[in-house]
Amino acid sequence: MQDVLKVGIAGLGTVGASVVRLIAKRDNRLAEAAGRPIRVTAVTARSRRKDRGIDLSGVRWAADPVSLAADPDIDVFVELVGGAEGPAREAVEMALSKGKAVVTANKALLAAHGPALARKAEAKGVALNFEAAVAGGIPVIKTLRESLLGNTIERVYGILNGTCNYILTRMAEEGIAFEDCLKDAQKLGYAEADPTFDVDGFDTAHKLSLLTSLAFGTLVDTKGISIEGIRSIKPVDLRMAEELGYRVKLLGVAQRTADGVEQRVHPTFVPKDAAIAQVNGVLNAVAIDADAVDLTLVGPGAGGDATASAVIADIVDVARGHRTAPFIRPVAALTKPSRAPMTRHEGGYYIRLEVVDRPGTAARIASRMAQNNISLESIVQRRTGPVRGGTDPAAAAAPAPVVLITYATTEAAVRRALKAMDSDGILIGAPQVIRIERD
Amino acid sequence: MQDVLKVGIAGLGTVGASVVRLIAKRDNRLAEAAGRPIRVTAVTARSRRKDRGIDLSGVRWAADPVSLAADPDIDVFVELVGGAEGPAREAVEMALSKGKAVVTANKALLAAHGPALARKAEAKGVALNFEAAVAGGIPVIKTLRESLLGNTIERVYGILNGTCNYILTRMAEEGIAFEDCLKDAQKLGYAEADPTFDVDGFDTAHKLSLLTSLAFGTLVDTKGISIEGIRSIKPVDLRMAEELGYRVKLLGVAQRTADGVEQRVHPTFVPKDAAIAQVNGVLNAVAIDADAVDLTLVGPGAGGDATASAVIADIVDVARGHRTAPFIRPVAALTKPSRAPMTRHEGGYYIRLEVVDRPGTAARIASRMAQNNISLESIVQRRTGPVRGGTDPAAAAAPAPVVLITYATTEAAVRRALKAMDSDGILIGAPQVIRIERD
Repeated sequence: MQDVLKVGIAGLGTVGASVVRLIAKRDNRLAEAAGRPIRVTAVTARSRRKDRGIDLSGVRWAADPVSLAADPDIDVFVELVGGAEGPAREAVEMALSKGKAVVTANKALLAAHGPALARKAEAKGVALNFEAAVAGGIPVIKTLRESLLGNTIERVYGILNGTCNYILTRMAEEGIAFEDCLKDAQKLGYAEADPTFDVDGFDTAHKLSLLTSLAFGTLVDTKGISIEGIRSIKPVDLRMAEELGYRVKLLGVAQRTADGVEQRVHPTFVPKDAAIAQVNGVLNAVAIDADAVDLTLVGPGAGGDATASAVIADIVDVARGHRTAPFIRPVAALTKPSRAPMTRHEGGYYIRLEVVDRPGTAARIASRMAQNNISLESIVQRRTGPVRGGTDPAAAAAPAPVVLITYATTEAAVRRALKAMDSDGILIGAPQVIRIERD
Repeated sequence: MQDVLKVGIAGLGTVGASVVRLIAKRDNRLAEAAGRPIRVTAVTARSRRKDRGIDLSGVRWAADPVSLAADPDIDVFVELVGGAEGPAREAVEMALSKGKAVVTANKALLAAHGPALARKAEAKGVALNFEAAVAGGIPVIKTLRESLLGNTIERVYGILNGTCNYILTRMAEEGIAFEDCLKDAQKLGYAEADPTFDVDGFDTAHKLSLLTSLAFGTLVDTKGISIEGIRSIKPVDLRMAEELGYRVKLLGVAQRTADGVEQRVHPTFVPKDAAIAQVNGVLNAVAIDADAVDLTLVGPGAGGDATASAVIADIVDVARGHRTAPFIRPVAALTKPSRAPMTRHEGGYYIRLEVVDRPGTAARIASRMAQNNISLESIVQRRTGPVRGGTDPAAAAAPAPVVLITYATTEAAVRRALKAMDSDGILIGAPQVIRIERD
């Protein structure tokens, strides 16, 4: 049996503590599987005194992440500090420069500096593993890096943020307004005090940018992502979705198109019988469409143990001496993605309009759609009463919305049609436009 | 860049041809990912003349699988011949004895000889990879071998046979009888002329035996599996399932219990909103319940390209020099599983009885259940008419069945209760008993 693999962990929050606990619990099993013992030998965290419910006897404390990363007596540096800059970045750079393998759960860091860090890892011939950075306990990074190499991937999409999925699930099931749901999620610890990062789609975008790179062999391009969050979703949209045979999910979608790589994060109508539509609460899911296989992977996207499971898998790969290029191929072989503009996006749309109550309005809507070559799958107009147990104060007093489901069309056509209706003076307020994604 | 990895393929059926085609198609991408070119350099198949729609120019033909396996000029031997004995086994043993890595899709071979072959691979320090042997294009072997090592696994279960899932899906959707559905499946090429291996559960059992070993660190124990196929399932069972909030799937289930490892293959009621309940047609799915994560993986369980995708992933691992013990830990560390007897199985049950039409029958049923401490979640008795479009000749004339859904109880208790009812003379024909599996 080979030497012990010495692991240094920076950050002992929920995930870090779980990593320490699960490595100790699975000690013999991990050694059998990896062919060598795996031990956490050094850590660093803000407080040494906090009771984390884990045994740290015999574990050295480093002063800070950077000095832990530089410690000659660790083999692999596990970064669980977080943040795209500052100590996390400095420590990861230090570890790589010292020729140490790095395992990180930090999607913000990788979205910002992934290729640069990968280049450093390549130069030193060490691993940079980040299974935990996307979809927590779901092994999607390994699946893309190792299991689908015989495939040409056409699309990868998923529910990548548990907070948003929790909120949308509760809004749909209980008819609650976004704000109330968010408050509950904050109380339960599913949402941060400042929820922007989650509910406005940035977290999903960071994760998507990594999936895109792995799926299409392109440089990470977070700036090329069109991002919409879930704040604008109303209970009426969820009711209409249910009625029309859909569920609403915040998806990150990356797709190969004739115009380049399309990357987008937005609330999405998904058919009710699609596998991804059944993914509720804080669960995550990733679907991959390729020429040889279509896969859907469902599991926990966050949580200490689930994320730790992914971190430990990355550590075992290092112990086994299995090293894969962080983005599958050498950074020099990654291409700059040509960005497909959102105006060229093609798909179906859910459009909810509040319109003036006068004769000819419906005809005008229909003709504006027709003028832009948009075919309608359904059109629904009726006063929708408040939903059972609903707390949406607007529902009872809302004017009758007109809801349209279109067949595949382009984003540009939809925008033109809506602009024309606005000029016609038939719209009250801004239209709600939600893209439909088919499985 | 390292030397070319020279691949020899025995068997050029649908899967073998797809492997050749996809390796050629992804040539550069595979080389970038693996760090070395991957080439199919030698093959063997029954006919050299058959047009397989693939380019075999420059590829050597070996006389038979065993001589291909012994060929000093190949690095990895891909066995796609099939069968637990004969040429497949001999060739794999030959390749391993020559110190060559082996990739195989042959679940029958591994179910029968997995540990013995793994011991040979270990002794020579070469890979024995079999991602394609279970659930086709779904990377469940890699997930168990590499991604979940930080977990203690409690249960692994899945839809592992596309033929059965296709038949059950059509029976449910169209109300067709098993025999008619099977005939259609045979016409469409989804079922063999002799369907026993699929519909009686043996194929599922072979795959399950491998998952059990990987999940629990036990020696492959195919003989320890309780096996029931789907021939006894009637359209009325699928109708009742729908009505009671379930779907019927042929599952393979392996579960850690206080009495040992429980391995079983049987038609199963799964809650309609479970992820696995949405898996229809020829798709496969595997669910893994562990202490840190619960995962569900859904994808194609068969088909040339999907299976080839898994074979290629295994080949790339060899090219990358990534070697994992076939059953995660050394064969010497695998334990002999203590078999949990099915009589101790605990769970809910669907029980459909045909009973004599006389006063007191319902009371007698209820008291026999109560005497065996079986609590009932629901009891349904009514004449069910033939389903729309149904072709089940028995449906119209069938006596009113009594359907019971029990809360968790033991198999032994259910058997005792049914035996008592039989002695009471109230049963007509054999009762239908289907286990319920909760997610």
